[in-house]
Amino acid sequence: MNYSMVLYILGYILQFESAFLMLPALVSLIYQEEAGIPFVITAAICLVLGIVFTHKKPSSSTVYTREGFVTVALSWIVMSIFGAIPFVWNGDIPYYVDALFETVSGFTTTGSSILSDVESLSHASLFWRSFSHWIGGMGVFVFIMSILPLMGGSTINLMKAESPGPSVSRLVPHIKDTAKILYGIYLAITLLEIVILCALGMPLFESLLTSFGTTGTGGFGFRNDSFASFSPAIQNTVTTFMILSGINYTFYFCILSRRIKDAFRIEEVRWYLFLIFASVGMITYNIRPLYANTRDALRNAFFQVGAIITTTGYSTADFDMWPALSQTILVTLMFVGACAGSTGGGMKVSRLVILFKTIRKELSLIIHPREIRKIRMDGHVVEHSTLRSTNVFLVIYFILLMLSTLIISLDEFDFTTNFTAVVSCLNNIGPGLNRVGPAQNFSIFSPLSKVVLIFDMLAGRLELFPLMILFMPSTWRKK
Amino acid sequence: MNYSMVLYILGYILQFESAFLMLPALVSLIYQEEAGIPFVITAAICLVLGIVFTHKKPSSSTVYTREGFVTVALSWIVMSIFGAIPFVWNGDIPYYVDALFETVSGFTTTGSSILSDVESLSHASLFWRSFSHWIGGMGVFVFIMSILPLMGGSTINLMKAESPGPSVSRLVPHIKDTAKILYGIYLAITLLEIVILCALGMPLFESLLTSFGTTGTGGFGFRNDSFASFSPAIQNTVTTFMILSGINYTFYFCILSRRIKDAFRIEEVRWYLFLIFASVGMITYNIRPLYANTRDALRNAFFQVGAIITTTGYSTADFDMWPALSQTILVTLMFVGACAGSTGGGMKVSRLVILFKTIRKELSLIIHPREIRKIRMDGHVVEHSTLRSTNVFLVIYFILLMLSTLIISLDEFDFTTNFTAVVSCLNNIGPGLNRVGPAQNFSIFSPLSKVVLIFDMLAGRLELFPLMILFMPSTWRKK
Repeated sequence: MNYSMVLYILGYILQFESAFLMLPALVSLIYQEEAGIPFVITAAICLVLGIVFTHKKPSSSTVYTREGFVTVALSWIVMSIFGAIPFVWNGDIPYYVDALFETVSGFTTTGSSILSDVESLSHASLFWRSFSHWIGGMGVFVFIMSILPLMGGSTINLMKAESPGPSVSRLVPHIKDTAKILYGIYLAITLLEIVILCALGMPLFESLLTSFGTTGTGGFGFRNDSFASFSPAIQNTVTTFMILSGINYTFYFCILSRRIKDAFRIEEVRWYLFLIFASVGMITYNIRPLYANTRDALRNAFFQVGAIITTTGYSTADFDMWPALSQTILVTLMFVGACAGSTGGGMKVSRLVILFKTIRKELSLIIHPREIRKIRMDGHVVEHSTLRSTNVFLVIYFILLMLSTLIISLDEFDFTTNFTAVVSCLNNIGPGLNRVGPAQNFSIFSPLSKVVLIFDMLAGRLELFPLMILFMPSTWRKK
Repeated sequence: MNYSMVLYILGYILQFESAFLMLPALVSLIYQEEAGIPFVITAAICLVLGIVFTHKKPSSSTVYTREGFVTVALSWIVMSIFGAIPFVWNGDIPYYVDALFETVSGFTTTGSSILSDVESLSHASLFWRSFSHWIGGMGVFVFIMSILPLMGGSTINLMKAESPGPSVSRLVPHIKDTAKILYGIYLAITLLEIVILCALGMPLFESLLTSFGTTGTGGFGFRNDSFASFSPAIQNTVTTFMILSGINYTFYFCILSRRIKDAFRIEEVRWYLFLIFASVGMITYNIRPLYANTRDALRNAFFQVGAIITTTGYSTADFDMWPALSQTILVTLMFVGACAGSTGGGMKVSRLVILFKTIRKELSLIIHPREIRKIRMDGHVVEHSTLRSTNVFLVIYFILLMLSTLIISLDEFDFTTNFTAVVSCLNNIGPGLNRVGPAQNFSIFSPLSKVVLIFDMLAGRLELFPLMILFMPSTWRKK
């Protein structure tokens, strides 16, 4: 393990976080709040530590897969640890474990909150919560690589560890250019949403928060009823941008390169859109009696399906009050998640498509034992290593789900609450059902449960492997 | 597809079922009940059909893997379809779909019931319910093969399809001898339990029912409170025999061949026993305040853990009233299930051990990419095909779980009810939580949901593949 290199990169991360933390400080300056001071001081601490860590360039800058996974996992943990400090300091969140939960929920774009009254927060804290979604959505390493050539060599391993998914691919030969294109698209979508929301009469500050949460597929609300009190036009805009943010960014790259046909041929995108339309249809039919007219039911169904499948987690309705069929569809979509290569979480549509194809292949092998059959996605043969890691992903996922539910059931809430809380955190959604439903929050849990859920959120965002690697003794053995 | 051979074997199955059906008829003779007549008539129908189907020996007696899977799946369906008839005919279960649910629940050793008052059943029906557990426990093909050389050639494919599990192995070179040994052990355990229960003062008839349900890991009760009203000595006896029945039968074979050390070296058995003791410890601690003394808490914890991990599903306590931690431990054990090569259901301990080892191996590969590492069980390298089918098993399992929960949520019960009903049926347990808890029953569901759960029970018992194969179009294509 190249410890000095790991520390060196962590130093970089801290310097970036220092810069990020100045933005809420700026917000507090505009709104003349004292709540901004802790952000400035924390930024200063991060800067100093960052400079110390990057003071000496390590002799070897090699980042093998192992270092890549460890560095990324530690970076996200370190960012969260420091990012949580201002919340406690300015009094918005009195307990550190709560602040850490909120910060991890922010960076991992989960959007689960321990706050019961977000409207009482300072502007600086509101901004920092939502902005952390935007940083975490595309990933901090993608950001860093898009603006500077971090250090020659195997930086691909960092990006791989941060945004894996079975279809991670370089859009263009150079990783730096790939990162630039990704961040360019990300920025463009965000700006477009801000402009449209402002045009629809939303104040600029709220438009910023909404857009950060939407394009990062995060989901922190800034009103106690999330989006229920906004106009239908604004709700529909947010729905559209949520769904756009859950699409594989390769789709946009194809469109930008004028390969429109290729864009719509991406299997994952087709399945993703199909799932959305099918779910909206069923839910609209199912919840129709609860609303004044079909249009209202449709709007709420669309918003909620978009919010859940993209793992954003905003809400316009308390779906905990919806009929069981609609609830189960939503819980199923929580598992599905968005497209790989998007900012969304969950198991990812493409991973499920691969798993379905694996089933078909294996069953087919029983029927025709001598047949040779390859699994293809978008016309390309899926490599054996991808298949294997997809399978192992599911195994780890399943076991993590069971163990986490087991531990948090120590708090003695009901099974639905415990199970959906874990599902929600592991898939970076936000709300669950019952006591963690859209109208509730996560403050009910004990510190132990919160730590478990923090782990699940990080594991979910980094797609399990980096976090698991941290706990393998052989990772830390000298060799 | 060798259709004539499939039909021929189905004919055999019907003849055996005809013989089995005469047993409840005999019971009704002893108790002088009219309820036995439908059993005789159904037996006659099965016999006639059986003779018709086996009238002409097929030209080719080859049973490829495909035919093996299809035949076994169809056999279980056919047995259930005919086995359900007497219940409707003698009026014990008025609706056919309910009778089918009950029969499938019997053969698959699930033990979920749609009856609210089992004490009002005729003796013949009570006997048939429990006896179906005993037939289904070890498997009907294992039984057939142990008593007659069915038809030369590849009968191993039938046994493989009926009792797969990652560690299916021939104990001795000849499949017929393996089947004989398995059935011998099975019979011996059953007889031993009957004798002990009688000695403890249980009437012979009830001892028979209990032992069928225990050694087959079925779980149909014959009193409305399952085992709550029996003496502690009887409860502890049942606990012991449930746990014994969940052990891999290779263990007993080793002991019979005086390889005691080998027996206790079987990894799966060790993990199985470890899981039992760990769960009992935690649950006893957790439920202690609900009982008069620690001994009572321990007895109930032991009984319930044994009943759930072996997927028997008897109950001495309404664990729906237990604290959430205990409930979640039980739900987790529902997934785990018993040992492969036992009569129990669930995912099987060895399958989980293999999955855990797969995780360790894959994570280790990230850390040391060039390392070559094999997964071993009991010192032997696990074959690649076993690993792959274990993974695919999990994938199918997971997807079936989600889809089934989705469909039965159309009935609009709460999430815990729907989810645990599916978990319970898919793992062949019996009770779930909430509205399908130990003190409740499955009559609440709509016919559609019952059909889904019937499918899940069969899929769970035959370990997914045979049932899935039935629905692959290419299975039925001529080739």
